[in-house]
Amino acid sequence: MQYPEPVAKLIDSFMRLPGIGHKTAIRLAYFVVDMNNDDVAKFSSALKETKDKLRYCSICGNLTEENPCIICKDKTRDQNIVLVVEQPKDIMVMENMKSYHGLYHVLGGVLSPIEGTGPEDLNIKSLIKRLQTNSNIKEIIIATNATPEGEATAMYLSRLIKPAGIKVTRLAHGLSVGSDIEYADEMTLSRAVSGRTEI
Amino acid sequence: MQYPEPVAKLIDSFMRLPGIGHKTAIRLAYFVVDMNNDDVAKFSSALKETKDKLRYCSICGNLTEENPCIICKDKTRDQNIVLVVEQPKDIMVMENMKSYHGLYHVLGGVLSPIEGTGPEDLNIKSLIKRLQTNSNIKEIIIATNATPEGEATAMYLSRLIKPAGIKVTRLAHGLSVGSDIEYADEMTLSRAVSGRTEI
Repeated sequence: MQYPEPVAKLIDSFMRLPGIGHKTAIRLAYFVVDMNNDDVAKFSSALKETKDKLRYCSICGNLTEENPCIICKDKTRDQNIVLVVEQPKDIMVMENMKSYHGLYHVLGGVLSPIEGTGPEDLNIKSLIKRLQTNSNIKEIIIATNATPEGEATAMYLSRLIKPAGIKVTRLAHGLSVGSDIEYADEMTLSRAVSGRTEI
Repeated sequence: MQYPEPVAKLIDSFMRLPGIGHKTAIRLAYFVVDMNNDDVAKFSSALKETKDKLRYCSICGNLTEENPCIICKDKTRDQNIVLVVEQPKDIMVMENMKSYHGLYHVLGGVLSPIEGTGPEDLNIKSLIKRLQTNSNIKEIIIATNATPEGEATAMYLSRLIKPAGIKVTRLAHGLSVGSDIEYADEMTLSRAVSGRTEI
């Protein structure tokens, strides 16, 4: 016997999400069946709106409902610094930190020869254009992830931008705050030692 | 900074699902942003259809698009046996087994004094009515879960139905096929011993 058609479709849709297998998808689909109508209607329209209303900001590549995005439009922010991230969601993480008030630029990924992602697949051209047309920008902070691909992308950007006389920095590597040295991996510990600061 | 409104709504909807916390909801929401339009549209309409098209079968309480459901309508199935389950999804599990060809009845839950679920909250009245109006039914198999509540519900139904001269059976308890005795819990092992069969 087959699942009733709407349930089968729902299971199929849930299974397309990352980390959700067949059993979990079935559980979620039947959970939706028992949810109240309002909540399901909201869920359904939130999905639709995500595709209908969201755009990428033409300046920084952030996800936004209005173009340019509210960060690019906000003239009270520090116009001298641009923090470069991999994904739009990284901007939210930075903003939640509440101690950075400059601008952003979203690459949309990282350089990855294995996955065939080259410089032309990322928002690098638009970053260079921003630097050429906006002489206010004095520093680029590269906040790609601390993965091999993220590091390589940071190196690539640094070599590309430095010759123009703009300061290029990278987020510090070291021990997590509150962590035990005992459990730190060798690479992190080695970066913590080489990046030591005077107190 | 806030998430763009459609993303915030989507995160909120995902968080209503069981087993999905804030971080996972964010990850899923941003995954949806990158999904192709078609898949998101399908997902959105599957949610809507689940609420719009699904009904409970007036005979057995199964989830169905047509009333009565295809199992109740199927006259080739064994009309003498009714298997009683807690939830509609349990029917799918039984059907996937492919060795049961009788009818079903969905209780919609189990008796639970803690949660305030009494006999009147379950589809018990409709089961009794089925037994009274349909003299074909010779056996009721109670397939509630092997939890205290499931066991109590099974006992309750058995006492209710047996006096009418209908055979009432319960799924066997014992070792899972392929499992090690070493890892079986005491309760299961004790039921496996008391329910031993001659070979």
